Amino acid sequence: MEIERKYLVSELPSNLEEYPVRRIQQGYLNREPVIRIRREDNDFILTYKSSGLMIREEVNLPLDAQSYENLRRKIDGKLITKKRYLIPYKQYTIELDVFSGELAPLILAEVEFPTAEDAENFTPPSWFGEDVTFDGRYHNSYLSK
Amino acid sequence: MEIERKYLVSELPSNLEEYPVRRIQQGYLNREPVIRIRREDNDFILTYKSSGLMIREEVNLPLDAQSYENLRRKIDGKLITKKRYLIPYKQYTIELDVFSGELAPLILAEVEFPTAEDAENFTPPSWFGEDVTFDGRYHNSYLSK
Repeated sequence: MEIERKYLVSELPSNLEEYPVRRIQQGYLNREPVIRIRREDNDFILTYKSSGLMIREEVNLPLDAQSYENLRRKIDGKLITKKRYLIPYKQYTIELDVFSGELAPLILAEVEFPTAEDAENFTPPSWFGEDVTFDGRYHNSYLSK
Repeated sequence: MEIERKYLVSELPSNLEEYPVRRIQQGYLNREPVIRIRREDNDFILTYKSSGLMIREEVNLPLDAQSYENLRRKIDGKLITKKRYLIPYKQYTIELDVFSGELAPLILAEVEFPTAEDAENFTPPSWFGEDVTFDGRYHNSYLSK
């Protein structure tokens, strides 16, 4: 189960390069349910997510470089490329996604929570913009169209 | 975890039509690891299997008709069609796959076991032919080539 909230960000924190960063490339074999392939640095992952916006079942399964390349030829729509910064905030980790390519200059922040109650009680940092948790347009599967 | 043995069959049991049967159509998005789509009557399933012959990790995830059709366009090689008969035998169920299309007249019997010891101690019925458990050519992923 994945419980998360998502926000638009327009101004990047000035100390961004202090945080761990991962280079991510991902595409969708299907959007509903989500069947996603992702390269995260040198890890290759197949992910299945059931339907829903704030709460979804998620299963992650290992791929290797060769199976990733085979499946990459089969995606619907665009391959998404982004840098993901991992920023500690209170007891959480902000995943700050800075998109490149056609989706630039989009920046999205995601925070994952252990319970729906934690998600509802979350107070975002001042540099977060609009809460787009319930706006399907900012799901990566939609962004890949 | 899936533990199974597989046999060639050349003669069908004469009372075959007494047993439950399912119509199966399946294809492979990837072969290593196995990422398979299957239609079984009106159920649609995505399956991931790690590498291995007798013992493999298996994850089954639900699809619907629309996502199945979308993914079917993306398979490597041929779509496999077969009738699967479910035949009780001792404490087990024989899955007897009678292939149609290009793979006819191939017939394969599979039996799944709770433990590797059960698999090793299994005595097949007299109408089973050659044991092909360790022959990769009879994996459906290979048959789809």
